[in-house]
Amino acid sequence: MTQEEMQTTLDAMGKKALSASRALAVLDPGVKSAFLLRMADMIEAEAADIIDANKADLEYGRGKGLSDAMLDRLRLDEKRIAAMAEGVRTVAAQSDPVGKVLEKRLRPNGLEITKVSVPFGVIGIIYESRPNVTVDAAAICLKAGNAVMLRGGSEAFNSNMKLADILDRAGVASGIPSGAVQLVPWRDREAVKMMLKMDRVIDLIIPRGGEGLVRMVTAEATMPVLKHYKGVCHLFVDEKCDIEKAVNIIVNAKCQRPATCNALETLLISKAVLPEFAPHLAAAMRQNNVELRGDEAFCRLIPDTAAASEDDYFAEYLNLTLAVKTVGSVEEAVNHINHYGSRHSDGIISDIEEHIQYFFGNVDSSTLYANASTRFTDGGEFGMGAEIGISTDKLHARGPMGVDELTTYKYLVRGNGQTRA
Amino acid sequence: MTQEEMQTTLDAMGKKALSASRALAVLDPGVKSAFLLRMADMIEAEAADIIDANKADLEYGRGKGLSDAMLDRLRLDEKRIAAMAEGVRTVAAQSDPVGKVLEKRLRPNGLEITKVSVPFGVIGIIYESRPNVTVDAAAICLKAGNAVMLRGGSEAFNSNMKLADILDRAGVASGIPSGAVQLVPWRDREAVKMMLKMDRVIDLIIPRGGEGLVRMVTAEATMPVLKHYKGVCHLFVDEKCDIEKAVNIIVNAKCQRPATCNALETLLISKAVLPEFAPHLAAAMRQNNVELRGDEAFCRLIPDTAAASEDDYFAEYLNLTLAVKTVGSVEEAVNHINHYGSRHSDGIISDIEEHIQYFFGNVDSSTLYANASTRFTDGGEFGMGAEIGISTDKLHARGPMGVDELTTYKYLVRGNGQTRA
Repeated sequence: MTQEEMQTTLDAMGKKALSASRALAVLDPGVKSAFLLRMADMIEAEAADIIDANKADLEYGRGKGLSDAMLDRLRLDEKRIAAMAEGVRTVAAQSDPVGKVLEKRLRPNGLEITKVSVPFGVIGIIYESRPNVTVDAAAICLKAGNAVMLRGGSEAFNSNMKLADILDRAGVASGIPSGAVQLVPWRDREAVKMMLKMDRVIDLIIPRGGEGLVRMVTAEATMPVLKHYKGVCHLFVDEKCDIEKAVNIIVNAKCQRPATCNALETLLISKAVLPEFAPHLAAAMRQNNVELRGDEAFCRLIPDTAAASEDDYFAEYLNLTLAVKTVGSVEEAVNHINHYGSRHSDGIISDIEEHIQYFFGNVDSSTLYANASTRFTDGGEFGMGAEIGISTDKLHARGPMGVDELTTYKYLVRGNGQTRA
Repeated sequence: MTQEEMQTTLDAMGKKALSASRALAVLDPGVKSAFLLRMADMIEAEAADIIDANKADLEYGRGKGLSDAMLDRLRLDEKRIAAMAEGVRTVAAQSDPVGKVLEKRLRPNGLEITKVSVPFGVIGIIYESRPNVTVDAAAICLKAGNAVMLRGGSEAFNSNMKLADILDRAGVASGIPSGAVQLVPWRDREAVKMMLKMDRVIDLIIPRGGEGLVRMVTAEATMPVLKHYKGVCHLFVDEKCDIEKAVNIIVNAKCQRPATCNALETLLISKAVLPEFAPHLAAAMRQNNVELRGDEAFCRLIPDTAAASEDDYFAEYLNLTLAVKTVGSVEEAVNHINHYGSRHSDGIISDIEEHIQYFFGNVDSSTLYANASTRFTDGGEFGMGAEIGISTDKLHARGPMGVDELTTYKYLVRGNGQTRA
């Protein structure tokens, strides 16, 4: 296929997406839920076809020499398909985020101004590897009344095409013009670049994947991007705190799922508590197979610790490594986090209320904790229902993004002939 | 000055901005108001110095052959300086947008999640011509707790430097480290490009000026941009409406200040009402010196009308020209607006409630009107107080942006040792 033919196909997809988005935007909440439930049913009903398509992907992946771990991420079976369908049903059951009255103003001249939530229109999602993202991401976008254009990982191409086709057909069966869910139908990298220039059609791009993907999308996209860069999360053990609770929180934040973005990467310890705290920490970390990299003060107390370099404090390890640093005060802890952190999730473990307040006021991150694990930064844990990701941006949405965060708003103004003086 | 020296100076400015922004973010609302009032007083007290600096700009402008209109926009006198100070006092009197509790959730595990409004941090403003923007824009950003880096038009360079210096000194006198307000201290275009790459420091860029400036900023900036592209605003005269009110609204929307972004550019008329409506419209427009450009149906009824081309329907005239088009239905009107419009402000003049609701639901613009002039899209008219601009973007802020729109939020989570299961 020539670039020109690709562009023509993408333009046609854009038109379909726009037309579907207009229908979705004014859809009755009940019809929208029914559409999502139909999606879930069709996914289960067509499980055999999905598994067939997935087999082709697994074969392609084996040919490309993918690792067993990669192949496992790619694999779809009855159980995983049922889980996808269940996820869609959960999204369907959430309250509708569209048409909420966010504010109402009656002006002295009689104008009635209502601010209401509305869908963005068309959302583009660019993601890697796992085919379940096709269904998860689409369901959340659709619940918020948006059409979606998807571009998944090239290894999952056949599975994604099959899933997107089912989702779009569920829309048509619910009275929505075809185009509610579309997948960019080529493995070609050029297609991504073209998609990222479709700012007349796509209102918002959400990249889901590693830092390389996010950087590429941010650099190339001509429309707004909502992104999650990385999670270099901190905990600060203050001079006065419950040491047992602190150790528990640290073990949970570091070890419960170390490969996630809200896992702990650097621990800051008040120098006043260091002598008492360091042995407890070292024992708990040894027990959990965590490798520590400490500063001078820490290494002096726990001699078998590796020395931390400057790079360690910028690192998102995503594994069982933990950088440790001693700080003289809560101010120093805050400055460290603002300098080395990624504005994701950071916490203080303290019994001193002024320090908690100082920490909350001065750390420039999306989510701050006092005496709890950073692992709670998550749409489900926040009670938002499903999430499409965790934003490390400051514009529009910060932290966990659920269906509400996939809407914008407009002002509706009613008058009876008012003119401006 | 070499590029390297420029970069070094900008980096130092960035550090100062960050440090000031941290102090501003946690400033007591009373201290912040006092700071703004001090700014206003100092602007008036140093009026003679401002006028001196402005004289140098006027001389430079005359040397560059600026038109009388341009020189007038550049000129500052006692009266204009008093107006700037008054503007700052108005901003000072607004309610504080920082620290508002936007949402509170108590989770089953006991975690207490509070979503609070916080400043962005550092906002960059890039603008043209009039030096009063230096004061207006800075005051709104500061009220929302943000530090500002400004880059004004090269003709107003001396006036802007003087004003920014006063504003920053007012900050220092209020206990804020120097850097709350800074102006990029060169006329050089290269400096703008460097500023637009400072994404480690500047959280948000707001361009204020013509389409060329906005395009350049959007293309070059590596941080998020909140922009106002243009206002191609429509009114749709429906088949059933009060013709006298309709004509009044149209005259107001087109003629009251035709050079503004919320002025009317294209009028859509239902073909059912066209024969009755066209003569009234033509008479009113003639009386107000508006040049009409009509479609075939309109030109047939009002024979001396120029024919509208496709380009006319995309045009932001910003003068006394009005494009006119006949449409068969409210659906056709909506499709026209979504295709040719700029998502700014559009209205329907109608007595049919279903049509109003269809219009409100389906036009994809920031502000929609029923039976009122589009000229009301304005922070002041909306009761927001001062505005920094009108966003045609969909992310973060849409429509008029006041101090609330210059904040973001963070989540503060309090626990007593919670860990994730």
